[in-house]
Amino acid sequence: MILPEPLQNLINAFERLPGIGPKSASRLAFYLLRDASDLGQDLSDALDGFKSKLAFCPECFNIMVKERERCDICDDSQRDESVICVVEDALDVLSLERTAGYRGKYHVLHGALSPIEGVGPDDLKIYPLFERVKRDDISEIILATNPSMEGDATALYLSQRLADSDLRVTRLARGLPIGGDLEYADQNTLLRALSGRQEMD
Amino acid sequence: MILPEPLQNLINAFERLPGIGPKSASRLAFYLLRDASDLGQDLSDALDGFKSKLAFCPECFNIMVKERERCDICDDSQRDESVICVVEDALDVLSLERTAGYRGKYHVLHGALSPIEGVGPDDLKIYPLFERVKRDDISEIILATNPSMEGDATALYLSQRLADSDLRVTRLARGLPIGGDLEYADQNTLLRALSGRQEMD
Repeated sequence: MILPEPLQNLINAFERLPGIGPKSASRLAFYLLRDASDLGQDLSDALDGFKSKLAFCPECFNIMVKERERCDICDDSQRDESVICVVEDALDVLSLERTAGYRGKYHVLHGALSPIEGVGPDDLKIYPLFERVKRDDISEIILATNPSMEGDATALYLSQRLADSDLRVTRLARGLPIGGDLEYADQNTLLRALSGRQEMD
Repeated sequence: MILPEPLQNLINAFERLPGIGPKSASRLAFYLLRDASDLGQDLSDALDGFKSKLAFCPECFNIMVKERERCDICDDSQRDESVICVVEDALDVLSLERTAGYRGKYHVLHGALSPIEGVGPDDLKIYPLFERVKRDDISEIILATNPSMEGDATALYLSQRLADSDLRVTRLARGLPIGGDLEYADQNTLLRALSGRQEMD
């Protein structure tokens, strides 16, 4: 034991965060020790009980402040209520909102179907989505699950289950990422980009 | 404002940490939200007032628990008191201790000389080092400042100031890092490795 306990405790806690190894954890702790802006205390305050202040929106299952009845997006009358974008995770809502290119509503599944890991439809917020489709006047469902095996399986399941209904079911385009290099694109991405090729306008 | 305030506050605080950008900050916050191990609260507790529990050792200026009179290393009678390893930062002590290859004492300068940034000898713990050399029975000073311009300047300054005294002044070897590739070594490192070449034993 080389380090004083309060410092070692802090390093141990940092190390438990994803993507932070022993070296980064030490560096962060020593940074906070030298830091004059009181970031350590600010971070402590921000972390203290933050989970208990949050809840999931009963409508779309996005994250919201606990006292609220619905999240900001569900409450926003300026947004198009007839389009629902289905995502795996609340973090995906954030990514899509940052594009400022979507003005519909969301539905957060809280995961993806995965028979291997034993995740079935009952483990996700799938039935509440069907409820919304039945109850509200929805014209389009955009399936924005991850372009992974689980994400694709989930999208397929949802599109099959929604096939009977009168709505348009779409999913995010696959292809070359912007700024990417054709040379470095993997085979599957390139295959998708080929088969999904579009007319020049 | 898309995110609930407690979550946005947490992301903002994470973003102020070095090496953590907006995306990593969001990812950490959402990870803690889903995490079942109460890591968020543990981290909050570890951060809460941790600075006020720590102080610098009045002997070597390493970090120690506030109530103590000297740090663990200075207090350790098993360690060689006649050798002092001079480092820039308390984090360097940790790195050297992890090697388990050094059994002497330390002296933490808390920086390096830098005329450009206006850091002179008075801004570092340099005079207390001279005091230790005068007062104690020191046989060797190992200069373990960083292999940077400032670190080298600091080592040069110290070696000149200690030249009159009767002690051995050494510094850490320069050369190829273990596991490194000669092809990728920069010119200066390679030059040092050449000029510092050693007999095969």
